[in-house]
Amino acid sequence: MDYKKFIEEQVVEIKQTVGDKIAINALSGGVDSSTVTVLGHKAIGKQLKTIFVDNSLMRAGEPKRVVKIFADMGIPVELVDARKEFLSALKGLTDPEEKRQAITDTFYKKVFGRLVKKYKATYLFHGTILTDIEETVAGIKRQHNILTQLGIDTRKDFGYAVLEPLKTLRKDDVREVAKLLGIPKEISQRIPFPGPALATRIVGEVTAQRLETVRKATEIVEEELSDSGAFQYMAVLLNDYATGIRNNKREFGQIIVVRCVESVDARQASVTKLPWPKLIRLCERIVKIPGVNRCLYDLTPKPPATIEYV
Amino acid sequence: MDYKKFIEEQVVEIKQTVGDKIAINALSGGVDSSTVTVLGHKAIGKQLKTIFVDNSLMRAGEPKRVVKIFADMGIPVELVDARKEFLSALKGLTDPEEKRQAITDTFYKKVFGRLVKKYKATYLFHGTILTDIEETVAGIKRQHNILTQLGIDTRKDFGYAVLEPLKTLRKDDVREVAKLLGIPKEISQRIPFPGPALATRIVGEVTAQRLETVRKATEIVEEELSDSGAFQYMAVLLNDYATGIRNNKREFGQIIVVRCVESVDARQASVTKLPWPKLIRLCERIVKIPGVNRCLYDLTPKPPATIEYV
Repeated sequence: MDYKKFIEEQVVEIKQTVGDKIAINALSGGVDSSTVTVLGHKAIGKQLKTIFVDNSLMRAGEPKRVVKIFADMGIPVELVDARKEFLSALKGLTDPEEKRQAITDTFYKKVFGRLVKKYKATYLFHGTILTDIEETVAGIKRQHNILTQLGIDTRKDFGYAVLEPLKTLRKDDVREVAKLLGIPKEISQRIPFPGPALATRIVGEVTAQRLETVRKATEIVEEELSDSGAFQYMAVLLNDYATGIRNNKREFGQIIVVRCVESVDARQASVTKLPWPKLIRLCERIVKIPGVNRCLYDLTPKPPATIEYV
Repeated sequence: MDYKKFIEEQVVEIKQTVGDKIAINALSGGVDSSTVTVLGHKAIGKQLKTIFVDNSLMRAGEPKRVVKIFADMGIPVELVDARKEFLSALKGLTDPEEKRQAITDTFYKKVFGRLVKKYKATYLFHGTILTDIEETVAGIKRQHNILTQLGIDTRKDFGYAVLEPLKTLRKDDVREVAKLLGIPKEISQRIPFPGPALATRIVGEVTAQRLETVRKATEIVEEELSDSGAFQYMAVLLNDYATGIRNNKREFGQIIVVRCVESVDARQASVTKLPWPKLIRLCERIVKIPGVNRCLYDLTPKPPATIEYV
């Protein structure tokens, strides 16, 4: 694939489509939304308003870190604090579909609705890639970011039209395009971290406290595995409790699963055969998180498992 | 420790205590209750009635297999089918303590109560070992088989007195005694399999269907790990579900945890560093069990985890 040509064509197409209107996009800091952001700014400059929504489901320090990376590239990003809105929408929900739906609705209908009105935006850029479309069509995944594929009339329901400039690319293509666009390696080579973020790393209810637990575990897993060369790695907080002993007393503790996989494009995946000293160290650090007393390593390939748990 | 002398002393003490009365004991097929059975029969012969209660929580084929091993040693064992009573007592229970209590009560108050009356037994032999006592006193474990340690007056509550001839031994001592008593290696060298059996391998409600799932996983884990040299290995069924894909459709599947540990006496334990081909093979076989789509390996030492989950 000729990535340089792809970029040139997309820039022309975006310019023609948007014309003199205003477009808006949400940046998560993942490689897909980052690539869309830079591509969009290359095409229409300040006509594209880029927003980073802090939905409380982010990794530690993520919002400020991402805004700074784009500021350094000369692209202004507006940071919107919507943490309370998301936590309130997620309260009491345990079903994975209901959790995803609550995040989608809060994001589009509430937070983005306000911003679209504020900026009088007509177009919304989305980082949808080919694998998202295939998995959604196949019924494997309910992607939150490809409304049109799900038959939703976005103009009518949300008040804007959706543009998906990456929808013909797979993950490895996106990384190449990102590199050509001058996006720093810490984003272009970054492991996937889907939109609902830490909410997809929690089995059961998403609360501020449980987010804090999985956020700490995520930090440990990312520190320990960033040099593993794996396709994706994550920490998942289960809803189950298991028995343990602390200070010679019986207790019930929470369970963290470490998931680390090899994959080319997320369609299939297999467990990374991490060396034993690394597994032991991960476990030692994770069971120091308050309330956690088990650390498990997920051995399952995709299929029959998915990479995520929720 | 002089194991030969230990056996001689226990035989004399048991004879003196029981006199011309009838004693009864429950055999689970584990090394502790097997050793008590042979020791008791050596001391008082047919005055000891040995019962194997099928509580529905056993491994595949276990009841018949154990009865045959003892028949081959010339020790008659009565097989009692109490599966329905146990399943009915466990129905709807998810709290680990409540599950253990239901098993204890069904075992002692119901099933054993009947047998004690039937045989007019005055004494009950128990396979309690030193680690059980220590952990119960420390509040780490609620052992089902050491009522006296918990301050229960067994004569009053259950109608018989409890004798615990192994209560000064640790697991490795028991194995030596078992060997000296001529107990076959498949029992004396057997990995621990505590009384509540598969019920301690199920997080959440114990039902006939969930027992069937964990029984299949247990069979696979024991086949694959019997030559691992590990102290104990098991399969645990979690209550949580995780997403998966089967035939290109999204599904929710059950999660099996494989636990395999190194230990001397169960007071402390560490994960067995199984070779990767073995881990992969375990996972491949386990995700073929109907309804299961994840296989995790537990990395956690004891402490802070216990060996069991429930």
